Amino acid sequence: MAGTDGLRLHHVGYVVSDIDAAALTYRNLGFNVGERHEIPEQHIVAMTFHAGHGWMELIQPTDLEGPIAAFMAKRGEGVHHVAYEVDDIEAKLAELKTVGVQLIDEVPRVGAHNWRIAFIHPKSAHGVLTELVQVPNE
Amino acid sequence: MAGTDGLRLHHVGYVVSDIDAAALTYRNLGFNVGERHEIPEQHIVAMTFHAGHGWMELIQPTDLEGPIAAFMAKRGEGVHHVAYEVDDIEAKLAELKTVGVQLIDEVPRVGAHNWRIAFIHPKSAHGVLTELVQVPNE
Repeated sequence: MAGTDGLRLHHVGYVVSDIDAAALTYRNLGFNVGERHEIPEQHIVAMTFHAGHGWMELIQPTDLEGPIAAFMAKRGEGVHHVAYEVDDIEAKLAELKTVGVQLIDEVPRVGAHNWRIAFIHPKSAHGVLTELVQVPNE
Repeated sequence: MAGTDGLRLHHVGYVVSDIDAAALTYRNLGFNVGERHEIPEQHIVAMTFHAGHGWMELIQPTDLEGPIAAFMAKRGEGVHHVAYEVDDIEAKLAELKTVGVQLIDEVPRVGAHNWRIAFIHPKSAHGVLTELVQVPNE
């Protein structure tokens, strides 16, 4: 049932109220300088940080619109999502659909670094907003 | 300020109410069979799953005692902690202490797979319970 395409831990996304303050905090913890991404269509600014083979991502809502602002209003700062890399995101999404997994994105979209991404609903992952990532040209 | 020992994404820990049901869910998502760890002194049972270069860990409280049961009573199922690997956990803890980071464990303890672990308080990491891991013999 596990299919041929195992999930590899790729990144964690944290929602924060002040991305510059959070970047300073995480620099003190040992992260290097992050890469800033302004994503107005999602009402967010994000920063991505290398973390060994994976990444850590900070996400700040830029206004009260959009799902990230709603998430933070409900839950406060903390982990927003966990992302796993797969080789073939379309095949993975099709496989998950056949076993009844509730998908937020049935078709991948493009995220930071041109990663192709799709979210699985937390209801299908014991409360964890779970992202699939296919990294281009790997 | 980042020191010489960068943080590498190592694992994510999820708290679940029924570890066998959750293991089946995650098998459907694409994980292979996990390794079970009974940890009575922490009032939990855990399962660890390979996830590429990292790991995913499920944690179920076995009774109403202990911090994991308290966490789940307050927050429900979901992400419990995020763990980063370092080369020298004692040096890292000493470095973090000097910059005022609030540590839960000032001295490392031994976790699953004989990983040497220590937790940073979520107050010092924008709401994320953050674990440091030193893997023996690497």
